[in-house]
Amino acid sequence: MDEAFYMSLIIPITGALGMLVVAYLAWSVRREDSGTPRMREIAEYIREGANAFLKRQYSTIIYFIILLSIPISIFIGLKATLAFICGASLSLLAAYIGMSIAVQANVKTANAARKSIEKSFALAFRGGAVMGLSVVSLSLIGIGLLYIIFGNPELVIGFGFGASLAALFAQLGGGIYTKAADIGADLVGKVEAGLDEDDPRNPAVIADLVGDNVGDCAGRGADLFESYSDNIICAMILGFLLAQLWEESWGNALMFPLVTQAIALLATIVGVFVVRKWRNLSLIGSFNLGLAITGIISAIGFYYASIVLLHRINIFYCALAGLLASLAVGVVAQYYTGINMKPVKRIAASSRRGAAINIIMGLAYGLQSPFFPMLIISAVIGFSYMVMGGGLEGFYGVAAATLGILSMTGFIMSSDAFGPIVDNADGIAEMAKIKRQVGGSLEKLDSIGNTTKALTKSYAMTCAGLSAVVIFLTYLKEANLWDKLALGGIDVTDPLILIGLFIGGALPFLFSALAIGAAGKTAFLMVDEVRRQFRQIKGLIEGKAKPNYARCVDISTKNALMEMFFPAIIGVVSPIIVGLVLGERALGAMLLGQTVCSVLLASFFINVGGAWDNAKKYIEAGHYGGKGRFAHAASVVGDTVGDPLKDVAGPSLHIFTKLINMTALLFAPIIVMHALL
Amino acid sequence: MDEAFYMSLIIPITGALGMLVVAYLAWSVRREDSGTPRMREIAEYIREGANAFLKRQYSTIIYFIILLSIPISIFIGLKATLAFICGASLSLLAAYIGMSIAVQANVKTANAARKSIEKSFALAFRGGAVMGLSVVSLSLIGIGLLYIIFGNPELVIGFGFGASLAALFAQLGGGIYTKAADIGADLVGKVEAGLDEDDPRNPAVIADLVGDNVGDCAGRGADLFESYSDNIICAMILGFLLAQLWEESWGNALMFPLVTQAIALLATIVGVFVVRKWRNLSLIGSFNLGLAITGIISAIGFYYASIVLLHRINIFYCALAGLLASLAVGVVAQYYTGINMKPVKRIAASSRRGAAINIIMGLAYGLQSPFFPMLIISAVIGFSYMVMGGGLEGFYGVAAATLGILSMTGFIMSSDAFGPIVDNADGIAEMAKIKRQVGGSLEKLDSIGNTTKALTKSYAMTCAGLSAVVIFLTYLKEANLWDKLALGGIDVTDPLILIGLFIGGALPFLFSALAIGAAGKTAFLMVDEVRRQFRQIKGLIEGKAKPNYARCVDISTKNALMEMFFPAIIGVVSPIIVGLVLGERALGAMLLGQTVCSVLLASFFINVGGAWDNAKKYIEAGHYGGKGRFAHAASVVGDTVGDPLKDVAGPSLHIFTKLINMTALLFAPIIVMHALL
Repeated sequence: MDEAFYMSLIIPITGALGMLVVAYLAWSVRREDSGTPRMREIAEYIREGANAFLKRQYSTIIYFIILLSIPISIFIGLKATLAFICGASLSLLAAYIGMSIAVQANVKTANAARKSIEKSFALAFRGGAVMGLSVVSLSLIGIGLLYIIFGNPELVIGFGFGASLAALFAQLGGGIYTKAADIGADLVGKVEAGLDEDDPRNPAVIADLVGDNVGDCAGRGADLFESYSDNIICAMILGFLLAQLWEESWGNALMFPLVTQAIALLATIVGVFVVRKWRNLSLIGSFNLGLAITGIISAIGFYYASIVLLHRINIFYCALAGLLASLAVGVVAQYYTGINMKPVKRIAASSRRGAAINIIMGLAYGLQSPFFPMLIISAVIGFSYMVMGGGLEGFYGVAAATLGILSMTGFIMSSDAFGPIVDNADGIAEMAKIKRQVGGSLEKLDSIGNTTKALTKSYAMTCAGLSAVVIFLTYLKEANLWDKLALGGIDVTDPLILIGLFIGGALPFLFSALAIGAAGKTAFLMVDEVRRQFRQIKGLIEGKAKPNYARCVDISTKNALMEMFFPAIIGVVSPIIVGLVLGERALGAMLLGQTVCSVLLASFFINVGGAWDNAKKYIEAGHYGGKGRFAHAASVVGDTVGDPLKDVAGPSLHIFTKLINMTALLFAPIIVMHALL
Repeated sequence: MDEAFYMSLIIPITGALGMLVVAYLAWSVRREDSGTPRMREIAEYIREGANAFLKRQYSTIIYFIILLSIPISIFIGLKATLAFICGASLSLLAAYIGMSIAVQANVKTANAARKSIEKSFALAFRGGAVMGLSVVSLSLIGIGLLYIIFGNPELVIGFGFGASLAALFAQLGGGIYTKAADIGADLVGKVEAGLDEDDPRNPAVIADLVGDNVGDCAGRGADLFESYSDNIICAMILGFLLAQLWEESWGNALMFPLVTQAIALLATIVGVFVVRKWRNLSLIGSFNLGLAITGIISAIGFYYASIVLLHRINIFYCALAGLLASLAVGVVAQYYTGINMKPVKRIAASSRRGAAINIIMGLAYGLQSPFFPMLIISAVIGFSYMVMGGGLEGFYGVAAATLGILSMTGFIMSSDAFGPIVDNADGIAEMAKIKRQVGGSLEKLDSIGNTTKALTKSYAMTCAGLSAVVIFLTYLKEANLWDKLALGGIDVTDPLILIGLFIGGALPFLFSALAIGAAGKTAFLMVDEVRRQFRQIKGLIEGKAKPNYARCVDISTKNALMEMFFPAIIGVVSPIIVGLVLGERALGAMLLGQTVCSVLLASFFINVGGAWDNAKKYIEAGHYGGKGRFAHAASVVGDTVGDPLKDVAGPSLHIFTKLINMTALLFAPIIVMHALL
């Protein structure tokens, strides 16, 4: 017991070490020069906008958290409430730290690009690593401390639930926000007022740049914080159960997830510092080296932890299978969305016959794209379950496969946050008219950013699918359904359980509809506000007056958050209603129905949006007449349709499915006791 | 036993009576005048085209049937093979009879419209009734005779499988065909060659008119023949099992489905003859009267059959619940696609901001639309199961609910086939320049046709969803999974069964992708052929030479059928592979996964397509600038995108889900014996 206590102390200490590195990285970013007064001014606008967003968003979320704390404290208990508040707060904190450094790193990256591309690259990546390491470190600190205090992983479920809820707000709100700003800036600023891209007189242009941080950076950070936390907690619970049943051989099953992730955090710190200028190594080469080093050290950690802690090499195989699966899903996504692949080329070619054919071909390829990812996820589940010999050990194997993927979270998140920083840097360079000084270096970094973004998307896809399954398996334990021999189980040959599956399947469709509709509606409001400012602020168009960026940001934020209120309610309320009316078995079936449809729809949305985006870029690269011709106009329609699908509905569905599962997990004891049927 | 034998004799006799009425109706249509020589000529073109389609389609299907007969006879038995061939043949025969009268009724309807709208209406409806009554009568004859010969409903499963296979070909082939012809006629004939709508010089215009018959008429006929047959057979099997277990009280459970449908056939005959000109009654009024009379007589039949045959009033409630559900789904579909409803108006309004926003708003409403239908279907399943007290009786209750819906098949199919006949009549009147003589009467009939078409679509949606569930429940019996106490059941807490669910969910996405892609590809080939004819046939554009309609039809048919080869293979092969590798339980989970996703996607596709279609019509009615303006151009894009979704992918998915379920049902004994896991 003492040994285990010391082992558990290591976890928050490693997390704290991670936060020290975060502090160092933040310091090393902040001490860099921000360039010309003009650059500082623009960066200040973005920072102002980001702060306005965070302020409004956080006050909405805090309201929601307090509201939800009441039923949780009454029905579940005070410890769960504390865990819930911690989970939500740390998720918000990680996003806050990551984003506030990202909105400083952007201008410094732009300035560094005036001197050398290598310096610029290293700076942007360090800025991203602040987000990546914060996510992982704060999660480990939170879970580690709560476990030390409570001594029971089941009491930590609330932490995951809080993380899920905060993530849904961050991702959905951020997604709606950024798309509304995007459409507002384009439709009014560029088309109606005739301004250039990134003109500072456009009131929505700053909101657009803020949106990059808010959607891609903070949203994704919250998403991965959630996946990471949920999985570790669930794996701990399954391990706890194994240890209770077979103390001898599974005694360390509870600590295994924490220990392996702590090792992975150390590996990520090494990996992050590897990404820099090396002699005889290209920039993307150093990025790949960092990725490889992180992966290899983590894998070695998994190998030794499997043997030393659990005396089983098979657990290591499960983790490896998970990692390979996320790579395989990446290859499939690359096929469907890569600019030089058949689907994108075909969609581009079909644009010559107009927008309708472009959309039809996109839908045809997009609907096809979830098939192989689904097979791959199924294969990992089947393999991990069987290699562990089935039963509860098999469940643990599936959780271990997900832990394998999770070990890359810190590095993947760092490279994902790198994208919007470089994007922003390019925008700042454009607006501050220093593009000639930086040459093509920011474009080069941008193309590296696009590669890392594609990597993250397929990573998040695999992670979300498997996480949902792991939470479901843990739900089985909490709802006393895991032991078939004790007449547990969820038998779908019972029509009343079957209808749980049906209702569950319909929820992601409803949720996506609301998310896409919300993006559309908020975009309209943004258009109205930008038009109003052009009309009412004297001298704006002549450059004599400053537009009210904060008001644009605030309106968009407020409405984005208002529009996401109802979808969030669905995620929390539907499992409780179905559970209380139809019972815990039908609820289990509902979880499965919505997991299947969420994963399929999300993969469809993300791939179809990516394919339309690249089809447009393919045409802009000079094919079929290039920019401004008939085929290009058709491809722009596809790209615009794809935006709310790939940046709002798709990523939000990943969180939606985990939130529903976590809600069921948290409320399982109540549902089991009070169900009508 | 003798009594039961005489009772079973009544079934094919009633079916034969139905066919006599079909013969009378066909005679009464054929004796009507076909109008001017020009009208006869055009009608001859359509007939020629339809024959070319049927010839090519049937030779492909026969090839497939022979190919499949070999494994069926080896692995399942000769009786099943005979039933399979009967099912496929009778489905094809019903479609053949119905379509060959429809392509004669069109011109006679156009001619009758020159005299009176009432006569024209009655004629078109009688033409449609030939299809409606053929479907129901031939199914009852086939199932009735096979049951009398074999004495065991399980040996009749092959009949349903044959019907499913033929239906997939008919609907998918017909759908791809009609959309290819549509796009070919529009893009080349109207846009490139500058011809008017329905100009006989356009080689694809006849294919377009043929397409109406082939897609809406023959395709839907095969769809309903399949739903009807599959359900009766499954209800018989469940009844057979009940009778074996409780001979006393459930002795007539096997005959109940046949008897109620025979009564419903008689009710339909009465209903069909009610639809005509009455003093003091509008045309749509007489249609509603016919619908009501069919419904009421069928309901009385159900009531007495429930009491006399089964001594249970609850069965009657189940049937009523099914009927009410199909009405409720109709109300939901009407909300999402009705021209005066909020969604369509909003989509129309959003067209002012361009094609992309039109598509986004359409997707938002479309994705929302499956939610309530899914809840309604779930409610019917839950109600029927519970009102019968659960267990096997509960399964029978779900089947009875579907039988309630089925009782309207004949009438609904008649009114559905009415649509393309009137559509064709309008086209013929346009081409033969007799529009001034017929006044607005064909437009009025067309609007009645649109009402009935909307009715049929939501009817088919409810029917397909519930049918799939009934086949699944029957599969449980055939795979020995229905009895939970005997440790049967499908427990989705087993990850290996769970992955069946995952794979099943992905299949409808893949299938839809292939169907939509096939429609796109075939349209391109059609475009090339029409361009070729304009280029190579001298004097065509001057009206001196006749275009080669048959070649257009043949190319489109051939490619439509080639393109649907792979989707059909998926429907037959995937359940067998999953069953043999993962076992009959995982296969059951797969059936559920694909049923859920098929129903959701089909409902999404059909509603979104209908909404885009009506948004365009709303603008054409004079809103937002009307025809030819910016908003109209945007709405045309939405309408074109919706075409392959609502007329190819959506309806085909209904058949796809039943085909997979029927394949599993037919091969269940083999799968149970030879499964690896």
